[in-house]
Amino acid sequence: MTKRTEYSHALDLQNGRVEMAHGSGGKAMAQLIDELFLQAFSNPWLEQMNDQACFTLPPGRVVMATDSHVISPLFFPGGDIGSLSVHGTVNDVAMSGAVPKYLSAGFILEEGFPLADLQRIVQSMARAAEEAGVAIVTGDTKVVERGKGDGCFINTTGIGVLVEQLNLSGNRVQPGDKIILSGTLGDHGVAIMSLREGLTFETTIASDSQSLHDLVAAMVAEVPEINCMRDPTRGGLAATLNEIAQSSHVGVTIYEATIPVKPQVSAACEFLGLDPLYVANEGKLVAFCPADKAEQLLAVMRKHSKGQEAAIIGEVTADPLKFVQMETVFGGRRMVDWISAEQLPRIC
Amino acid sequence: MTKRTEYSHALDLQNGRVEMAHGSGGKAMAQLIDELFLQAFSNPWLEQMNDQACFTLPPGRVVMATDSHVISPLFFPGGDIGSLSVHGTVNDVAMSGAVPKYLSAGFILEEGFPLADLQRIVQSMARAAEEAGVAIVTGDTKVVERGKGDGCFINTTGIGVLVEQLNLSGNRVQPGDKIILSGTLGDHGVAIMSLREGLTFETTIASDSQSLHDLVAAMVAEVPEINCMRDPTRGGLAATLNEIAQSSHVGVTIYEATIPVKPQVSAACEFLGLDPLYVANEGKLVAFCPADKAEQLLAVMRKHSKGQEAAIIGEVTADPLKFVQMETVFGGRRMVDWISAEQLPRIC
Repeated sequence: MTKRTEYSHALDLQNGRVEMAHGSGGKAMAQLIDELFLQAFSNPWLEQMNDQACFTLPPGRVVMATDSHVISPLFFPGGDIGSLSVHGTVNDVAMSGAVPKYLSAGFILEEGFPLADLQRIVQSMARAAEEAGVAIVTGDTKVVERGKGDGCFINTTGIGVLVEQLNLSGNRVQPGDKIILSGTLGDHGVAIMSLREGLTFETTIASDSQSLHDLVAAMVAEVPEINCMRDPTRGGLAATLNEIAQSSHVGVTIYEATIPVKPQVSAACEFLGLDPLYVANEGKLVAFCPADKAEQLLAVMRKHSKGQEAAIIGEVTADPLKFVQMETVFGGRRMVDWISAEQLPRIC
Repeated sequence: MTKRTEYSHALDLQNGRVEMAHGSGGKAMAQLIDELFLQAFSNPWLEQMNDQACFTLPPGRVVMATDSHVISPLFFPGGDIGSLSVHGTVNDVAMSGAVPKYLSAGFILEEGFPLADLQRIVQSMARAAEEAGVAIVTGDTKVVERGKGDGCFINTTGIGVLVEQLNLSGNRVQPGDKIILSGTLGDHGVAIMSLREGLTFETTIASDSQSLHDLVAAMVAEVPEINCMRDPTRGGLAATLNEIAQSSHVGVTIYEATIPVKPQVSAACEFLGLDPLYVANEGKLVAFCPADKAEQLLAVMRKHSKGQEAAIIGEVTADPLKFVQMETVFGGRRMVDWISAEQLPRIC
């Protein structure tokens, strides 16, 4: 990788801060790109130094997803805004059954943001992208004045290829489908809330933030009949189930006793007044699949390192009212409503 | 287009404001999407209500570009952040010679932002997308607390298809190439600065913000030998020429007398202490093409409504120092340096 030009001084990545000039389109921006972004993301597309990336895709339908990340705080146990921004978009692409391939990255930086923090974030993005098998091929940097942003916001947009003859969609779920969750609920949201509230538990609760592309690839290879997959992020599992119920005009029944939640997450939820059903996850998926394929799919998921705690947590019902209900551990039934209010702002 | 569910009250698009709940992943966010975004952007991909869009592309290489928009003020003569966010990314895709096809839209809204302003912006995006022949197929909305953003930031990411056997790139420019500018310089930057400074001139200076996809299509159809195209946005023509000089290891000479600048823009620049070479444009392109094709390309451009004032403004030279120079109207020569400092913050 060659720099475009010589700069009079190297960027001060220890003590330097983002300045308005870093978003100006001039030499200061070029230096930031050369010495920070290109160092971390180095790949043949970015190194073309054009305002766009050009590549060929294998045959198949193309899938596109976008996500802006505004999480606060920027660094947390189990990740940071950099890794999260890759995982979030990789997972949105992967939930269609597609193989994620390329990402764009758009940064909105606040004047005064430490370059050392930016470098840490960018390096974390680079690692996450490598793990997910995607390349960050094009980008953009804007700077806003102090007090007009909040350190660092990152948009990532991903594209992937749906090579197999898969048809997963929120409106394809059928009464009788089984609902499989890939692992424990609530880890991400509780990790962030504990950090914000300054809570300490016997064991640190870490975010589950991770890319699910490989778990998805294993699942669709074995059971292409899956009707829908979603990653229950903002609004948690409750929002996802209600969205699917609305889109597919079905009801949903889940069984509390079958839903995996880590004991420390459960304890923290109780302490914080949160319900794990509504807490954001960043490394879990929920799959809706025909009942006669459910055990086979569950077995594939449990064999995978990212699905070891997978469980069948419920089923889809014929319900014109599109209710989502839960059988509690005490044998009762309660509605799992689609909440309107904000439980956990800036969680992703 | 059908709503996912019934809401107790319609969104108050006259007096309502963005609330934290609009970014929560819950019912309030669903309502904002249903009643505001889907109303404006309605298309079959968005209406699938999945976290990603899926489509087929015609054969060819795929081109991807991203741009976050933080312009201030949000509304200006000739456009607003909505239309600008479409034009900016459509143009970045088109500069490769590709046909822009699909856009994603990621919103970062500040708590308290008027829904009426958001609707105006979104409707403007929808019109701009229609004019550019692109569909906004997937999106994301985040909300940050009052004082942690600045009303509305928009990221758009675009993909297009490079159907023809074109090879345009910043590193392909050759000594001897002619440099053609598609129209007047500085209109966008001066429109924004005049508004910020509260200046009034005899005639209002409007931004040139527009999509150049159709001009580009006409150009590459007639002269596929073009070596490079760029839209001189942030940093202006000066930044673009210096970037190309660095990437292609060439020098550039331009002739001041040939560069079209509107008289009122010229006057405003003098008043504001700006140099039109450094002022952002949002609806102009600069093309580098072999000398023996330059007149043919110029003729095609002048025939097009978006290139009527196109002019050959200079040529590429063999210069190991990669200098960009200008012959002034007085017959002198001056360096057109790549400035480091920020002249016009938040211009796009």
